[in-house]
Amino acid sequence: MIQRRGMLIVVSAPSGAGKTSLCEEIRKHISDLAYSVSYTTRSPRPGEVDGRDFFFVEESVFRQMAGRGELAEWAVVHGNLYGTSARFLEQARVRGEDILLDIDTQGARQLRGRYPEGVYVFVLAPSMKELEQRLLERKSDAPQEIALRLGRAREEIAAWREYDYLIVNEDLDEAVHQLQAIIVAERARTTRLTLAIPDLDEGGES
Amino acid sequence: MIQRRGMLIVVSAPSGAGKTSLCEEIRKHISDLAYSVSYTTRSPRPGEVDGRDFFFVEESVFRQMAGRGELAEWAVVHGNLYGTSARFLEQARVRGEDILLDIDTQGARQLRGRYPEGVYVFVLAPSMKELEQRLLERKSDAPQEIALRLGRAREEIAAWREYDYLIVNEDLDEAVHQLQAIIVAERARTTRLTLAIPDLDEGGES
Repeated sequence: MIQRRGMLIVVSAPSGAGKTSLCEEIRKHISDLAYSVSYTTRSPRPGEVDGRDFFFVEESVFRQMAGRGELAEWAVVHGNLYGTSARFLEQARVRGEDILLDIDTQGARQLRGRYPEGVYVFVLAPSMKELEQRLLERKSDAPQEIALRLGRAREEIAAWREYDYLIVNEDLDEAVHQLQAIIVAERARTTRLTLAIPDLDEGGES
Repeated sequence: MIQRRGMLIVVSAPSGAGKTSLCEEIRKHISDLAYSVSYTTRSPRPGEVDGRDFFFVEESVFRQMAGRGELAEWAVVHGNLYGTSARFLEQARVRGEDILLDIDTQGARQLRGRYPEGVYVFVLAPSMKELEQRLLERKSDAPQEIALRLGRAREEIAAWREYDYLIVNEDLDEAVHQLQAIIVAERARTTRLTLAIPDLDEGGES
């Protein structure tokens, strides 16, 4: 009798390009993934639904939650606050569910400390690939622009090494295929499994 | 520019049921896998081809190879000797290829010491599942038979915990799907990847 513990699947991407689509697609492919809806202080964008895409809250509410330890991780991204409900993660964990989280590198770092057995996936945006290409071809951009891009590239590189897996999102279908493979594989990891056979632990007496 | 190091994919199964079919199928699905053909002292079975299924050698030849350190691992299974060419593994490694190996638990243990970064997959045969079922239903077999089965089950359990992944081969297609996912996922592992961007390490000067 094989039992499996639930796991966190944390997906981060530096520039945001493609990550949300990837998370949406993978939820269509793997239907039994719980999805952690983040809290944020930023305003909803057109089409975003409160409680589905984010929980949109005032900064005062957010900071109270953080102060009461209700957030498993939180971070400031482009001046807005983003955080993950600690209670949601714990409840899903107790139910043995796999949970998908779409969070930034700062938040992922905090979760790594709390859930080291989680699955951490870094998605490299196509722009990174383009940047590489540009550098490889050694076209002459304005030096400041190149410095800026190199600086960002450096940060991106530093971040991806902290993750377990790297997906280069050049083609969404291929990226979904890779993320799905990662989840299927991680579900078969022996460290997440328990094999229980009645009577076996008692020395084989029947 | 992303570069990936090649990896060993070691597949073991206690009773042999399904493992060879699984390895044959996965090679059809993932065409760029190198396959390590084992050396053995046992006689060819009908349909087996020397150099494709095994290299069939005399025991004196085998023991000379072992004595000269030409085998990356070797073991005695049911009175026959089985071993893996160290040179083949090293040559494939230098070429950056992924190598599939179908070897027993003793051999896998030796390879784990030599190649700890390899991917170790344990395939649990359907008979194991049946055994569990039998125990769960608590049917009364002859006590000796139960003790024998429990003893074997115990060995199997002890072995699977040494592996990274466990596949329960109840359905071959599903098992192939899982093994394929494991290989696709492991190819995306950050520890196997190098991201090289020209000029980046020199501080961003263009």
